[in-house]
Amino acid sequence: MRSNGRTAAQARPVTITRNFTAHAEGSVLIEFGNTKVICTASVEDGVPRFLRGQGQGWITAEYGMLPRATHTRNGREAARGKQSGRTQEIQRLIGRSLRTAVDLKALGEFTITIDCDVIQADGGTRTASITGACVALMDAIDSLKAKGKLKVSPLKQQIAAVSVGIVDGKPVCDLDYNEDSNAETDMNVVMAEDGRFIEVQGTAEGEPFSFDEMNAMMALAKEGIEQLIAAQKAAYNDN
Amino acid sequence: MRSNGRTAAQARPVTITRNFTAHAEGSVLIEFGNTKVICTASVEDGVPRFLRGQGQGWITAEYGMLPRATHTRNGREAARGKQSGRTQEIQRLIGRSLRTAVDLKALGEFTITIDCDVIQADGGTRTASITGACVALMDAIDSLKAKGKLKVSPLKQQIAAVSVGIVDGKPVCDLDYNEDSNAETDMNVVMAEDGRFIEVQGTAEGEPFSFDEMNAMMALAKEGIEQLIAAQKAAYNDN
Amino acid sequence: MRSNGRTAAQARPVTITRNFTAHAEGSVLIEFGNTKVICTASVEDGVPRFLRGQGQGWITAEYGMLPRATHTRNGREAARGKQSGRTQEIQRLIGRSLRTAVDLKALGEFTITIDCDVIQADGGTRTASITGACVALMDAIDSLKAKGKLKVSPLKQQIAAVSVGIVDGKPVCDLDYNEDSNAETDMNVVMAEDGRFIEVQGTAEGEPFSFDEMNAMMALAKEGIEQLIAAQKAAYNDN
Amino acid sequence: MRSNGRTAAQARPVTITRNFTAHAEGSVLIEFGNTKVICTASVEDGVPRFLRGQGQGWITAEYGMLPRATHTRNGREAARGKQSGRTQEIQRLIGRSLRTAVDLKALGEFTITIDCDVIQADGGTRTASITGACVALMDAIDSLKAKGKLKVSPLKQQIAAVSVGIVDGKPVCDLDYNEDSNAETDMNVVMAEDGRFIEVQGTAEGEPFSFDEMNAMMALAKEGIEQLIAAQKAAYNDN
Amino acid sequence: MRSNGRTAAQARPVTITRNFTAHAEGSVLIEFGNTKVICTASVEDGVPRFLRGQGQGWITAEYGMLPRATHTRNGREAARGKQSGRTQEIQRLIGRSLRTAVDLKALGEFTITIDCDVIQADGGTRTASITGACVALMDAIDSLKAKGKLKVSPLKQQIAAVSVGIVDGKPVCDLDYNEDSNAETDMNVVMAEDGRFIEVQGTAEGEPFSFDEMNAMMALAKEGIEQLIAAQKAAYNDN
Amino acid sequence: MRSNGRTAAQARPVTITRNFTAHAEGSVLIEFGNTKVICTASVEDGVPRFLRGQGQGWITAEYGMLPRATHTRNGREAARGKQSGRTQEIQRLIGRSLRTAVDLKALGEFTITIDCDVIQADGGTRTASITGACVALMDAIDSLKAKGKLKVSPLKQQIAAVSVGIVDGKPVCDLDYNEDSNAETDMNVVMAEDGRFIEVQGTAEGEPFSFDEMNAMMALAKEGIEQLIAAQKAAYNDN
Repeated sequence: MRSNGRTAAQARPVTITRNFTAHAEGSVLIEFGNTKVICTASVEDGVPRFLRGQGQGWITAEYGMLPRATHTRNGREAARGKQSGRTQEIQRLIGRSLRTAVDLKALGEFTITIDCDVIQADGGTRTASITGACVALMDAIDSLKAKGKLKVSPLKQQIAAVSVGIVDGKPVCDLDYNEDSNAETDMNVVMAEDGRFIEVQGTAEGEPFSFDEMNAMMALAKEGIEQLIAAQKAAYNDN
Repeated sequence: MRSNGRTAAQARPVTITRNFTAHAEGSVLIEFGNTKVICTASVEDGVPRFLRGQGQGWITAEYGMLPRATHTRNGREAARGKQSGRTQEIQRLIGRSLRTAVDLKALGEFTITIDCDVIQADGGTRTASITGACVALMDAIDSLKAKGKLKVSPLKQQIAAVSVGIVDGKPVCDLDYNEDSNAETDMNVVMAEDGRFIEVQGTAEGEPFSFDEMNAMMALAKEGIEQLIAAQKAAYNDN
Repeated sequence: MRSNGRTAAQARPVTITRNFTAHAEGSVLIEFGNTKVICTASVEDGVPRFLRGQGQGWITAEYGMLPRATHTRNGREAARGKQSGRTQEIQRLIGRSLRTAVDLKALGEFTITIDCDVIQADGGTRTASITGACVALMDAIDSLKAKGKLKVSPLKQQIAAVSVGIVDGKPVCDLDYNEDSNAETDMNVVMAEDGRFIEVQGTAEGEPFSFDEMNAMMALAKEGIEQLIAAQKAAYNDN
Repeated sequence: MRSNGRTAAQARPVTITRNFTAHAEGSVLIEFGNTKVICTASVEDGVPRFLRGQGQGWITAEYGMLPRATHTRNGREAARGKQSGRTQEIQRLIGRSLRTAVDLKALGEFTITIDCDVIQADGGTRTASITGACVALMDAIDSLKAKGKLKVSPLKQQIAAVSVGIVDGKPVCDLDYNEDSNAETDMNVVMAEDGRFIEVQGTAEGEPFSFDEMNAMMALAKEGIEQLIAAQKAAYNDN
Repeated sequence: MRSNGRTAAQARPVTITRNFTAHAEGSVLIEFGNTKVICTASVEDGVPRFLRGQGQGWITAEYGMLPRATHTRNGREAARGKQSGRTQEIQRLIGRSLRTAVDLKALGEFTITIDCDVIQADGGTRTASITGACVALMDAIDSLKAKGKLKVSPLKQQIAAVSVGIVDGKPVCDLDYNEDSNAETDMNVVMAEDGRFIEVQGTAEGEPFSFDEMNAMMALAKEGIEQLIAAQKAAYNDN
Repeated sequence: MRSNGRTAAQARPVTITRNFTAHAEGSVLIEFGNTKVICTASVEDGVPRFLRGQGQGWITAEYGMLPRATHTRNGREAARGKQSGRTQEIQRLIGRSLRTAVDLKALGEFTITIDCDVIQADGGTRTASITGACVALMDAIDSLKAKGKLKVSPLKQQIAAVSVGIVDGKPVCDLDYNEDSNAETDMNVVMAEDGRFIEVQGTAEGEPFSFDEMNAMMALAKEGIEQLIAAQKAAYNDN
């Protein structure tokens, strides 16, 4: 039993609230336990310069945290004048993962910008972001269909993400902040609906991890993400 | 009758949700109609260098908008590497206003940082920010009292703010985005509980405004702010 | 009697020197007592991207202080790599005020950039800047007329600005640095030739101010600005 | 057979030149085929502020590419005024990996800064950097021992890294630029001497990858890194 | 005869106005013909970190141009967020030159910051800056003596600077903007009162220059600077 | 005899290695004794905006130092977010010098970017950079000729550079770091093959220098550069 009463394989309760804010083509509040992220998908005509004239679309992502999303206040990145390495790493991960889920040729010359803004952090903000962003993206695609700008959805399949890790020598799923701070290994896994992987990022924080530990973590991740994809579907189908 | 069905003096419905996020000493979601702002107050020991050793506290504020709080997406300030002039102007206004509400000597050597982050914008984000921030500040002060770090509240009196303006030649209270875009004059007023003013910022967007128009706007502002202060009290007293 | 020997309503001596520097289409040195600001107006063909093809002109302003314009040296903004919030606030105010004075449609596709550089500061630098900039703007417009690029002046009316405030409990006009440092309330007022207002920015530095105090300050401002507009006319007509 | 004549499991020839430049405590030129990276380790007394007084050391890394290390010239990051997200991601990976290899308590209050500068790029720059940096670090530690500042080496074990991927449907080891550009999946693996993993970062560039593909890649990585660790030892023992 | 009516050896009329602004310890307006620069010297207690505890002082310089000092408006460096390479080069030259003129040990732990701000540019702004800055520095040193903080002046000797060049194949002294734009070679020379050189910076803009041309330019520079040093003395002695 | 065993007129051994890295059109490692600089020349179609449509080419340069090229580690400019004044001064010098060597009209609408990256520093990095860059430029021009994009080389003549100075009262050629740190005067000279000068930058670090000392330094520079030009020719002709 984990200190928070969960079994090793048990993810935190997930809540997905669509249409959370009014203006974005897709707007989702996703909650992984006490972690809360607003994910919006904004559609714009045209693509960045490096893609012009190639007849394909683009998906990109930005990530931020409200300064007091965390236990102690973090300096505002806009005030410091730059995004941290961590922020850039996360937003690159989100964008890359979502691009894998979409047929960019079929999207056509639209840019969809995903904004993931953490309003409350308790571990797993990047995996919650990816999971919520996928739903926001689906709503944004539907808005393009509703306006007649797309006939067929370019989404190949849903994706979702969860963190897994080794805590007190045992593999566990969906670490909260407290577990994450004490994990020997921390691994973020992005998986598609068909059970294949899009990103695996495992980091030994203390001791290195073995091949067997890695496989145990991957198995937990697979199980966790399957539940998240089901939650995405439930939210998406609930009008 | 205004296009949104309000009378000239009628502000939008106000909702103040305390303890909106978990970590901050004060955390408020304030809604002025469709404008929604998360206001947090974070307490830190110590004061900025320029105040050290003077036995007084400090209150400062930062303001931001989620990129898709608006009708079309605005570039993220953290990604652009600087805060706009508008952002800085607003956060200076918020900080200055709140400092006027507090006896900084009585606060002692604590710094309270107010973060106002707009998650949905429909006009009046700066006045909603100030009004919500005052409640977050009150909760933060109470947390200091609860921890025995302060015996008496250094709050001199509550403050709140509303925008007023001249739209279609007539003075109106609490402009939404649509009205604001068409206003001849836009005025932001910050007032204290005792009916006196802390900030008055009136700007002719098109035609200059007369002394009489100014007085009419000020009267509307006074009436609107009195209601906001009542709403703050109701929220604060509702445990 | 004020410490500097002026009556409450008495502004400092104003000097307006046109053609102060050689290259700008309009170049004015304005002095409000010991406050000295070089205001230039530079005309360029074309308008910023957001206005292209709309057949209208643009007026914008930048503000700076020489590092040793003040009692103690301030770090050079160019060396620090950014303009302070105060600087941005002031230059936005100057630009906005002057745009109100001009029919931008009638200006046509020209951009006029106002630079206000304070070479000596003793309070009231932003109001002196606006007052001097209006004369520089008038000269720049005349240069366009002289070159046959404009037939009719797009200037609707002159504007000028003065600071007023509450010092030692009494409303006074055109505060110097010493008064400004001790003011309970500081208000900057921009007014047009027809007696109507373009900007009113009042800030309680210490105690809030009452409706009556505000009206007293406004009356002083009106009187002061009328004298400034007369001084502008005298300078402009003096070839 | 791969287009470059290598078998799937075959890494490129590795060359490790110690004492490549004169001033650093450790200085290594590492070559993975045509990829060439200068790795230096610089020792400084003291630790960053956040570690002071904790009696432990720190290892950090920076990464850069000469502008023309690549086929076409990339803008110089120093001239653009910021490091790209990719650069920050890589240098965070290098630093994190090396910290895992060292007992920071046993290092004591020294900071070792690793600089990895790519002078010629042909794929695998981050894995070459880590592999070369480990040798530079070993030399830097020896310099501390030679000066009597350390008695026992704080290095727990060597680490090295290699990239693996799926190219044309088949798992391969140590991708060059051409293979990397066409890979369906790209995975960077950092492993310690004892066969356990420190980092695994797998990214589906096109199609997602299966569990089996991942395991095949991991097996190739293990084999490749064992050879790299042998090459490190040979270089280190060759005085 | 040059197009401006001067002989080859003839510098432009020089005007040095001391106490040009009120707050600085030294404040000079220097005019080389139509080039006008405000040079101030600001004294602060203490020295930069790298000099602390060495019992010596420091002199540093910053340089700027008002945006419309030139024929067409240049973007404001503070707004662009950085100083140009040209600006940095010039301010490094000014600071280095003045440090050579002063016995920094005898100055003691004071920092004197020289600000040279060009309000009107017509060639030779850097040489005018150095020449004016020397007088501002002398006044600042006198202010330290007047306050009893220094007993003996640490100034070793005066310095001044002039530009020389090859225009239309002939060496000339003190080029104005028009000449400078057409010069084949441009050389800035800083010389001390004793006739020895502190800086020589010659640049072939078009054709390289010969040894003989260089010597001819140096001779003109020497003659020109001797006159500037006399002008400095006259201004300094004129109370 | 100098401490390093050289005569006053004796430069350090020079080594020029062409084709040092693989991708650039010109790539040279130049060594002046222990100073080692990688100089690459990159050819791109087109010219910067300010030259478009004028039928001429452009040559520009950037300079950098690996952080541990020096005795103690210097902060990485990319990480600090800006290039130092020294770096900008040097890269401006390199670019300006090389432009003088080339007939930009004859180059046509190509941009050649020179990158000089110091991997080991022992004095004279800027002069080694210029000397090596000239050879890289010659190779880049040859690559344009080989591709049929140029028929005739636009190089007017070779250029090279050396530092000279006054050390212990005597003029010497090609100062190493130790001599440079103790020099009374430091002078960098760029000369063309025909014996005429392109840049002369002399700086008194301590005592001013006399006309005679300057001439003695110039004579040493001429002799040193003649040898460097011979070394360039030898390297260039050695296929």
